[in-house]
Parts: sequence; structure tokens; C-alpha cells
Amino acid sequence: MKKLKFGMIGGGNGAFIGNVHRHGAIMDDLAELTAGCFTRNMDKNRETAEAWGVRDMDRVYANYEEMAEKEAAREDGIDFVSICTPNDTHYPIAKCFLEHGINVMCDKPLALRTEEGIELKKIAEEKDLLFGVTYTYTGYVMIEQARRMIAAGEIGNILTIVAEYPQEWLLVQMVSDRSDQATWRMDPARSGPSGCLADIGTHVEALIGRMTGLELKRVLAKFERLPKDHDLPLENNAQVLMEYEGGISGMIWTSQVAIGNETELRIRIFGDKGSIEWQHKDSQRLIVTKINQPPMIYTPTRDYDMDSARSMSRLPSGHPEGFFESFGNLYRGYCCALLKKKYGEDHGDFLYPTIDVGIEGLKFIDACIESNEKGNIWVDLA
Amino acid sequence: MKKLKFGMIGGGNGAFIGNVHRHGAIMDDLAELTAGCFTRNMDKNRETAEAWGVRDMDRVYANYEEMAEKEAAREDGIDFVSICTPNDTHYPIAKCFLEHGINVMCDKPLALRTEEGIELKKIAEEKDLLFGVTYTYTGYVMIEQARRMIAAGEIGNILTIVAEYPQEWLLVQMVSDRSDQATWRMDPARSGPSGCLADIGTHVEALIGRMTGLELKRVLAKFERLPKDHDLPLENNAQVLMEYEGGISGMIWTSQVAIGNETELRIRIFGDKGSIEWQHKDSQRLIVTKINQPPMIYTPTRDYDMDSARSMSRLPSGHPEGFFESFGNLYRGYCCALLKKKYGEDHGDFLYPTIDVGIEGLKFIDACIESNEKGNIWVDLA
Amino acid sequence: MKKLKFGMIGGGNGAFIGNVHRHGAIMDDLAELTAGCFTRNMDKNRETAEAWGVRDMDRVYANYEEMAEKEAAREDGIDFVSICTPNDTHYPIAKCFLEHGINVMCDKPLALRTEEGIELKKIAEEKDLLFGVTYTYTGYVMIEQARRMIAAGEIGNILTIVAEYPQEWLLVQMVSDRSDQATWRMDPARSGPSGCLADIGTHVEALIGRMTGLELKRVLAKFERLPKDHDLPLENNAQVLMEYEGGISGMIWTSQVAIGNETELRIRIFGDKGSIEWQHKDSQRLIVTKINQPPMIYTPTRDYDMDSARSMSRLPSGHPEGFFESFGNLYRGYCCALLKKKYGEDHGDFLYPTIDVGIEGLKFIDACIESNEKGNIWVDLA
Amino acid sequence: MKKLKFGMIGGGNGAFIGNVHRHGAIMDDLAELTAGCFTRNMDKNRETAEAWGVRDMDRVYANYEEMAEKEAAREDGIDFVSICTPNDTHYPIAKCFLEHGINVMCDKPLALRTEEGIELKKIAEEKDLLFGVTYTYTGYVMIEQARRMIAAGEIGNILTIVAEYPQEWLLVQMVSDRSDQATWRMDPARSGPSGCLADIGTHVEALIGRMTGLELKRVLAKFERLPKDHDLPLENNAQVLMEYEGGISGMIWTSQVAIGNETELRIRIFGDKGSIEWQHKDSQRLIVTKINQPPMIYTPTRDYDMDSARSMSRLPSGHPEGFFESFGNLYRGYCCALLKKKYGEDHGDFLYPTIDVGIEGLKFIDACIESNEKGNIWVDLA
Repeated sequence: MKKLKFGMIGGGNGAFIGNVHRHGAIMDDLAELTAGCFTRNMDKNRETAEAWGVRDMDRVYANYEEMAEKEAAREDGIDFVSICTPNDTHYPIAKCFLEHGINVMCDKPLALRTEEGIELKKIAEEKDLLFGVTYTYTGYVMIEQARRMIAAGEIGNILTIVAEYPQEWLLVQMVSDRSDQATWRMDPARSGPSGCLADIGTHVEALIGRMTGLELKRVLAKFERLPKDHDLPLENNAQVLMEYEGGISGMIWTSQVAIGNETELRIRIFGDKGSIEWQHKDSQRLIVTKINQPPMIYTPTRDYDMDSARSMSRLPSGHPEGFFESFGNLYRGYCCALLKKKYGEDHGDFLYPTIDVGIEGLKFIDACIESNEKGNIWVDLA
Repeated sequence: MKKLKFGMIGGGNGAFIGNVHRHGAIMDDLAELTAGCFTRNMDKNRETAEAWGVRDMDRVYANYEEMAEKEAAREDGIDFVSICTPNDTHYPIAKCFLEHGINVMCDKPLALRTEEGIELKKIAEEKDLLFGVTYTYTGYVMIEQARRMIAAGEIGNILTIVAEYPQEWLLVQMVSDRSDQATWRMDPARSGPSGCLADIGTHVEALIGRMTGLELKRVLAKFERLPKDHDLPLENNAQVLMEYEGGISGMIWTSQVAIGNETELRIRIFGDKGSIEWQHKDSQRLIVTKINQPPMIYTPTRDYDMDSARSMSRLPSGHPEGFFESFGNLYRGYCCALLKKKYGEDHGDFLYPTIDVGIEGLKFIDACIESNEKGNIWVDLA
Repeated sequence: MKKLKFGMIGGGNGAFIGNVHRHGAIMDDLAELTAGCFTRNMDKNRETAEAWGVRDMDRVYANYEEMAEKEAAREDGIDFVSICTPNDTHYPIAKCFLEHGINVMCDKPLALRTEEGIELKKIAEEKDLLFGVTYTYTGYVMIEQARRMIAAGEIGNILTIVAEYPQEWLLVQMVSDRSDQATWRMDPARSGPSGCLADIGTHVEALIGRMTGLELKRVLAKFERLPKDHDLPLENNAQVLMEYEGGISGMIWTSQVAIGNETELRIRIFGDKGSIEWQHKDSQRLIVTKINQPPMIYTPTRDYDMDSARSMSRLPSGHPEGFFESFGNLYRGYCCALLKKKYGEDHGDFLYPTIDVGIEGLKFIDACIESNEKGNIWVDLA
Repeated sequence: MKKLKFGMIGGGNGAFIGNVHRHGAIMDDLAELTAGCFTRNMDKNRETAEAWGVRDMDRVYANYEEMAEKEAAREDGIDFVSICTPNDTHYPIAKCFLEHGINVMCDKPLALRTEEGIELKKIAEEKDLLFGVTYTYTGYVMIEQARRMIAAGEIGNILTIVAEYPQEWLLVQMVSDRSDQATWRMDPARSGPSGCLADIGTHVEALIGRMTGLELKRVLAKFERLPKDHDLPLENNAQVLMEYEGGISGMIWTSQVAIGNETELRIRIFGDKGSIEWQHKDSQRLIVTKINQPPMIYTPTRDYDMDSARSMSRLPSGHPEGFFESFGNLYRGYCCALLKKKYGEDHGDFLYPTIDVGIEGLKFIDACIESNEKGNIWVDLA
């Protein structure tokens, strides 16, 4: 069995998401961490490399440009790079690796501006490279189960979609002593022109797309910076009305100031024959209701689940898998595609969010920003 | 102890809500059913009267005009009338009784048009009569608990409100053989120019008002008639963005085609120090979260509850009270006010929704209709 | 339509259960309160009678013996009496009314000793009278749904039963200022030789019997008086192993010192083809799981429900009915049986717990007491 | 930073638990897999080694004896061995490694017989070796939170404990086509003289011990093999009454034929000042109720959590960690202890279940077997 070699940019600064990427990438023994530029502090860089099992210290690099160049030059260079740095750096780093012919798995958002995303896609296509974007929640087993049930017509034609992603952390930081996250996420220069919509609302948009396959046509958005008496630079509460192809309606609420909500992404899809509901708080349960029947609670790894969903679980029924394992499924999808492309080996078929999902996300944010600025009018997606 | 005498218009046609009004009115032994015009069929009218304990068959009337006239003429005439007929008849009936000097407890909506509601209010004020409107959900114990906690500042300044009231019955009727409700509720002539927004969305609007005391300033609404390939006369799915005094934002989704939802009214109010959540499905539980603290589950009749909430329960903790008892609390509030006004007797202080709430509801519907018709723009409440 | 006339013994002392009996009896317009001895204080007695709508003050009696005698002597005497006095008085009162030829609806427990129960049954049979015992929880709609599904073989052969009824009130009273209930419930002279087992454990035993139809054969019980450093007269925590016909096993835990539990009766019945779970906290939901299928959540008044369960609801789906309405279903069953017996009128068929259920309950308590006293050995039911 | 080297026995046969051990051991970068005998088939053995990142194929062994000998002989030999083979082999394998001076982390049960466990402990003590037993559920964050809250007196003196661990898989296998687990778990020769009690009941016993620190004194147990008309070799349903030091009562139900239950371990501990409830189904929530206060829902990584619990999470609030991460916490505790012992390095203080917990578990099973065989009498723990 072949394994892929991969490198990482970022992750050595103590932010949890770097470690999530790493564990996701190695979880199913499809890839091993071979190179990296984990942080700018070279001591910490090497320390991280050692702790994370990089065998060759020569492959710990001072900056990403050097890494891209040298790894591209090696015969045994990395197969792909994982980018888990702050938002404003995704675009230049991804561009650099693509230009050196290296596949990219990038944290979301893909870039700060739509045209950057489109440019990256163009390069990736020219170079025939795989580009994944880690929309975490698409890796949950029950999301795949939902997607396949909807595709199979089990809830009929979709009538309307109601989704939300409230968090509370921004307000909680006001009364606690943690402030690690607040800094760059509230800085437009680093996180881009949108706050909570770009940070978490875009997860909802991507998840609806994954589950339904529907194309988003236009949006009407209202942003707020709460509490109003604070001078905040970016919106942390957003309401969005959506219209998908065929005039199907949707609704998203997302917030970072909603006390009592940790990471409460919730999606409900209503059809004319049934409905499907999933919430991150109970990520291993899917509520499915057929019209005029009692609601049913689907769980992973059961005989009644779709094959593609069953194959995503690593544990027997009732043994909870969580955020790490969901991330692992993104990387499993990406690595399987890469292994098939490179070696023709078949390790199974798992979906992963491509650069197209990332670009859709950027267009969604752009349209919402425009709608909000123009007084909450309908704006078409570019 | 004095008891009030009351009469009923409607309720004899088998619709459940008539019986709910009756039980609500007599539940706490503050009133007894003395007269009525329960249905146009005189046999059924008398049968209902007998079953429901009306002692004097002379006080069973063929029509409401006769009843208003004769009861007003009696020295021992009814103290108030309960109106539980279809929507389009509320206004003329209420007007008739008010003009005869009889207090009115009316099912919602108060009327089909705002000006009718305002006219009724004017008459009630001129005649010094009490006019209540039965917004059911305001009678739940935990709603009072929430209202008092919010008033006491326990969640701080309100930041945003997220509410919904999805039902499924309209679609369920397509596959089942029941059609009793669908008929008149889908007939604009009888139920007015709005469908699900007027039927259930207005409950949400009233409940937010009750819980927060906030005045609604403007709305942005989008209506739908689903499934689109059916030729339906009224909206059965509505999305509404709201703005309250001080620019506080709100969001309502209401639907009658959301499979898996029976009567799932849910309200979440977020402040800068905490949040409060209530849903009809668990009507006896209130989720209260103080910032950076674990969510707490409040239940009725506990020492930690507010006095005004505790006094509304009729059973010890853990013994569920439901829809009937909630309705009973509306009537308890109304009857106590009337007993105090008429006899100076103090039976306690319980809130009930007044005609002002009914008028606000009509204005809300008007503004939403206008917003929807004009392409989902912001419309101020009249 | 004929109505029954009934009288009440007890209920005028402010204890909630009297009012629950009264509302239960009149809820469906099958009976009207005509006579009573509500309390020993004659002023309060009359006051209660008036508030509760007794029309003829001559039928308010100073004691139950007088009431039994005089009502028996009237041509229009009461059809049945409701007994809702403390436990130690059930037997003499019931006996007195039976001997005067009056049907009896008695709160549980039927009596303090099994032989008393048997004697009452003998008299009732000799006089051809209906004797009901108000095991409240059997009146919940979803219990009937469960009973019928089990009878229809939907969960296959029963393998084992796991049930519990924890409460917290006894400990809560230590820190709060309420002590109304504690007094007589902790007095062996008034409540009998068992505490929480007789008070609430017996509800569980009756409910299992109702749902499964299984005959209980033997028990192994352990009683405790908690906290141990308090000098309590009766057990307030009990563990019971049970064996039903065919060697089917069961398990009950019941407590009045289990903090966090208000009235949390919960029953789970496991068969070889499925399982059924009900808990009082969510009394309108029944969890049904067929083997290797997703759990389903049944609710009342749905097309998929059994007819006998559907007929017990008074409201449309999603409108909660609670403790009062459950009690109403007991009285509806009792009154329908009486109306059929007396007038041959058919008002429907609803179950109610008969004196046999009451006697089984007494035998169950006796056997548990014996098992506990003998060191937790198996004891056959008499 | 030093890393430990470890080897594995078992895990290469496709059973999920081997992979769980491996991921648990490497999750926090405290150990790396260096050697192993993963299965008897040498091809698969090497394949597993390669996939799992063993660098030196000379350290892939044909049998455990050879591995123990050769690793003990190397200067850079493994620091500890993980044993994840079927139950009947734990004892000889553990003994072999201990005798070669190698620390042991063993799946539960420690051995098939209590005397074997005691012997292993004796050897470990003589050789001054660390011996851990992987009682999975003790690794959940909220279990540590509960343990510390109980120790801090937050629920007062413990009154009674109610616990259960129902599963359904044995019955589900009757109707599905999976039978992998059933084979050896239902074979007394391989899994020992007890079925579900040893397999899962012992998890409950260990978890109560961890959370409360209470010593178990005696038990009364009843075993069943269900359905009765099948000829099953071992019990798959067990009821156990327990008595802890100070006469504190407990109750366990465990089953492998309880339809609707996947892995539903649930523990409730009631004190005189509060109660604590945890269930595996919602492993990241802990319900804490202080007397006469609303129940509170604790979650991981919050400021209000105990430090020792907070340090066990690897993700921010609301990001679910599951079974893998719980297992990781067992290995983190074990590795930290070993790193401190070997290098004096402090990587934090995390609990892990020691051989004492394993021996207690064996005594518990012995006593329950004896109680069941003697007709459900009380039996003291040896």
C-alpha cells in the first residue's frame, strides 16, 4: 500500500486547527507528515516537527516559498500541502504551491476575494492539481447519509431550508480571560471584509450545497455588530434570506454573540414527502420524518444507512466519533482521490469539498456584503 | 365568593377550540357558562348547551344579535362573552356585544383589518369594557417566568431575537383523510388576507411582545405558497426580518408545510448577559443561560421561580399542565380583572392579552403583507 | 344525553388531588358534581361545594356516613362517589358507600391491607357495583398506544422490563419551606406500612401490568430510609427485582430523595422484535424501536396511532395534554362503563383501572415488605 | 521532548479496538509505535506494521514471546506494550512482558480469573512496572469533571447510585448479517465465565469507582440468557444490586439484548445536596442538579470546569470529542506517568485505570457469578 507524503504550513502556533489538520491527514494511514513550515519561530518550528514525527529535519523550512521550491525540486517531494494559517495568507501560499506543481488542501476560506479564488482554480486546472477546502462539517457521517437520502428522493422535492450557526464565544470572551481567537478574527485585514458570515455562515452555505446539490441564486442579508454600544469592526450577527434554483427558499441565521450556543450548526431541509434535520450538537443523529409518519432517529454504521455513509465510520454503532474524525473524512476523500490519480490505487470513494465549494463560498459572502450595504435588498450571486 | 356569568358564541360545531375556551373559562371556578349561541343548528345548539351545563334553556339563542340584546336587558345578564367563531365574524360579533355593554373575550385574530380592531378598541374604551384576545401561548407558566426574568435584567440588554412556529398539518392533510381545518383556513374570505402568518406567525409576534415588552418598528417579509405546483390561495410559509425599538433585530420563520413539526413554536431571546429559550414542545421547561455559565433548565412551581409564574400552576412540580391549562390562565387573568372591576374582589393578578395586543397583531400582518407585495422591502408598522 | 351524578369525599382541604379528581370527572361532560363531604370544617365544606358548582346545599354533608345513607335513600341519589382522602380512610369510606349500593371511584392505594381490598371487591361484586382505582398514569394516551402495540406483537415476545419512578421532593423539603406533603406521607398510621413503594412504586407496577398484561409472580426488594443519619419512619428509596409469568424479568427503582427528579416515572419494555419506552417527563412521546431500525417517536392523535389511543386525545397533534387530562381519561373510562351499565348508552370504550389492579398493588407491596424484612430474598405474590 | 516507544500485541485482525489503542497511544505525541505482533499471519502482520508506521520491520514479531525477549534485550527496546487481543490471552501475554521488565497497558478484562490478576499485580510491583487497564469510559472529560465535583462535596454525601449499560447488538445480529463480534464474545473459553457483565457491566462498576472513590462491599446479582428459547452459553442480561462502604446502595442493569440501545452507558449519582448524571449517548454533557435549583448542563473546556477536566480536552467548546479521544486520555495518563518515572519530565497529570481497577473488576464478576448461582443472595467481594 502506498502512502502519500504531505507538508503543512502553519499549525505550530498553538491554534487547535493545525493539530486537527494533521490528525485528519494521518488518521486513516493514507498520508504521512514529511515536511513543514509550522511557524516563523525556527525553534518552535523544529520542535513541532519533532513532536509531530517529521523524520528529516532538513524538511523543516523557514518560510513557505522555500518549502514549495525545495519540495518541488525533490524526487520524493511532498504530494500535497495542508494550509492552516490565518485567512489572509491562504491565497498567496496556495498560489505558490500550485505554481510549483504541488496539490493543495486549504483551510476555509479559500481566499479573501472571489477573484483570488477563481485565479487559484485556474492555476490548479492548468497544472492538473487537486485542490480541497476543509469545510469541516461536510465530513460528518450523517451529513453524507442525509445527502444520499435526499438524492434518493426520500423527502421528495425540497420546499424550503432553515439553517443556523450560532456561537457565543465573542461575548464569553468579554467576561472570561481568554482572547486568543478574538484578535485576528475581528481584524478585517487578516480575516477579510466579513466577520461571522465568512467565519461560520459560509459553513452553513457549503453544507446546504453538499446536502441538497442546489445552486444558490440570490441573497438578502442583514449584518449587525453587537452589542451596538461596542465599536466592533466586523459583523458578528447575520440574517440571510436565500433563494436557490427553482425559487427554493432558504434562511440562515449566524451569530457569535448568542449566549448558550457553543458551536450549534443546525440544518433542516423540508421536502414535500419528508424532512431531514441535523445539528452539530448531536452530530451522530439525523432526524428523518416521512410525511404523516413518526420521526425517526438515524445513527451511523447501521444496516439501514447508505453504504457511502457507513464506510465513513471507523467505530461500531454507539461509539461517538467527533470533530477530529469528521476532519479525517475530508482528508480521506482528498487522499483517496490523490492516490487514485497518482497510483491508480482504489482506497474507496469519499467526497471532499473542492475549490468550487470554496469559490461559491466567496461569492456568497460578496453578495451578502453587497446586500447588507445596499439596505438589505436581493443581490444575485456573481 | 362571586362568580362571573358568561356566554359563548360558537364552539358547538365540533371544532376543538370552542371546548378549549369553555374549559379555560371555568377551570378556576371564576365563571360559569350561563348563555350561548353555540351553532346555527338549533338542535345542536341546545344539545351543546345541555352537555356544557347551561341551566336555563331560554338563554340558548338562535343568533348573536338576539343574545346580545336579551342578555344586556337582563339584570342577571352575562358579564362577558367568549367569541370562538371563524376569523371573519370576530369583528361584527364583538362590536355587537360591546355596543350592548358586554365585555368581550375574543379568539385571535381580533378582526380581519386593522381599522376594525381600532374601532373595537374605541367602543370598548367608550363603554369602559374589558376586551381580551386569546393569544394562547402567553398563558404558559414558563413564558411568565421568562418575562419576569428579562424584566429583572437577568439576561441583560436584548441583542437579538430568533423565533419560529413551524407546523406540518397542511401537507399532512394531502396524504391523510382529514380536511376539517384546511377548508376555512385556506379561504381568504373567511380567514383574511394572510394565511400562516396571520394564523400562527402572529402568535410569535405577540409572544415576543409579551416576553420582552419591546415595540416592533418595521418588518421585511417574504411569503410563499408551497408546494409551488399547487394553486394555493394564501401563503403557508413566511420568513420575516424584524426591527424593534432601539434597532433590536428579530427573525421569524413560520410554516404550515414543514414536515416533522406539529405545533413547534420556539422563541430564543439573546441578551448581553444571558439568553432564554422556550419551545412549545417542552412547554414546561425554560432554558436559561447566564454568560459563561452552564445552561439551566427551569421548571414550574419551584422555589426559584418568580411568584407570578408560580401562582399560575395548578399542580405540583413534574405534573404536566398543557394547552387547556394555558388557556385557563388567559381566562383567569381576564376574570380576575373583571371580578376586581365589578366587585372589588381580589383573586390575584394574572396577565391576559388585551385588545392592544390584537391590534398590534393586525398591524404586523398588514406590514408583512405590504413588504411581501413590494418585493421584500422594509415596511414600518402603522 | 344522560349525565351521571357524583359526589366527592375529601378534596376541600386544599390538596391538589381533590381538584384533579373533580376536573377529571367533569372534563368530558359525562358527570356532574351533585353532592359531597369535602372537609370536616362545615364552612369550608359549603364554600368548596359552592365554588365547585354543587347546586343543592342540602347535599353537602358533615360526614361520609350521612352522605352515603341520604344519597342512597334519594331517588336521584349520586351514581358514584369519588374518594380522595388520605390513604388510611379509603377502606372504611369505600366500604360504607358500597354497602349503601353506591359505585366507587377511589384514589390509590385502595386500602392499607390486602385483605381490606379483597373484602371491598367481594362487596362490590355482591352488590354488582363498579369500583375504579385512579392509577393516574394509565390514563396517558401514549400508554394506551404502547399497550396496543405490545398486544399486537409489534415488539415481539417480552424479554425484560426496566422501570423507575424517582422523585426528589422529600429532600427538597429539607431546604425549602414547604412541608404540606411530608407530614402524612411519612406517617405509617396514615399512609400505611410502606412509604415510597406504596406511594409511587405501585404506580410503576400498575403501569407495567396495564402495558404488558403480564402477571407478577415474585419479587426481591430492598428498602432504604435516606439519608441514613435521619430518623425516618418509612422507606423512601426502594430497589425491586421482579419476575413475571413465564419467568420474564423486571426491575424497579423508586425514590423520593433523588435530586433532579420531579415526577420522573419511566418505563422501558424490551421484546425480541422491538422495544417501547415512555417517560412522564415527555408524556406525549413514545419511543418505539423495531429491531435493526431507527428509533421512532410516536405522538398522540396521529393517523398511525391505534384507534383506542387516538380517541383519548381532546386536542390536535402538538397541543399538549397533561396530568388533568390523563386523570380525565380514567374518569371517562369509568363513566362510560357506568353509563352503559345504567342506561345502555354507548359513549365509547375507555379502560380504567379496576379494583383488581388495586388489589394487585397491595399484594405487590406486601411481598416487597416481606422480602425486605427477610433480607432481600425472593417472595411470591400471595 | 522525549517520546516513549511502544509495541502492540493484536490489532491486526481488523477488530476496531486495535486501531483505537494505536490512535489513543499516539494522539498526544507522547509515544510512537516501534514494534508489534499484530496478528499471527506474518504477511498481514507486516502489512499492518507498515500501514501503522513501524519503521523497522525487524521489530515485527511472529509471536509475543519472541517480541518480549528481543525487545527486552535491546537498549532501545519498547517502553511499554499495548495488549489488545481476546480476553483469554491477556494474562499470559501480560505476564510474559512483565517478566521481561516491560510496562503493560492491557485491554480489559485484565484476566479471566481474579488470582491471575493478583499474580500480575505482584509481578508488576516486584519489577516496579506500570500496569494500566483500558477502562475506556473513565477517559471522558465529563467523567473527570464529575469525579472532581463529587470529591469537592458539590453533591454532598452520596445516598444511592443508579447505573446501566444496555446494548442491543446481540439481538441485532440475529436479523442482520454481521456476526464478527458474537463469536468469541459468546464463547466461555475465550471470554471467560461471564458474558455481558464481564464485557460491559464491569465498565459500569469501574466508572462508579472512578467517579465516587467508593469501595464496593457486596453484590446481589441475577443473570439471564435471552431469549430463553435460544441455547446461549453466557448471560446477556444482568441485574445487580450493590452495597458500597458505609452501606451506600447501588443498582446496575446491563444487557446485550435491549433493542434501541447502542452503547448506552448511563450513570446517576445522588447525594444529599445534589446529583450528577452522565450518559455515553451525550458524552460531552454532564447534568448537575443542586438541591432545589434548576438542573445545569455542564460541557467541556469551560471556565467553570475543573482544571483537571479542562486539560483533557483537545478542542474548543462545542467541538465534539468522542471514543478515540477518550481512549487517548487513558494513554495520556499512562504515558505521562511513564515519562515522569523514566525521564522525570512533567507532561501533566492525568489519571489512568491501574491494575487495581482491573482486579476489582474481576472480584466484582466473581461475586456476581456466585450470587447468581446461589439464587440471588448477597455475596461479599473477596
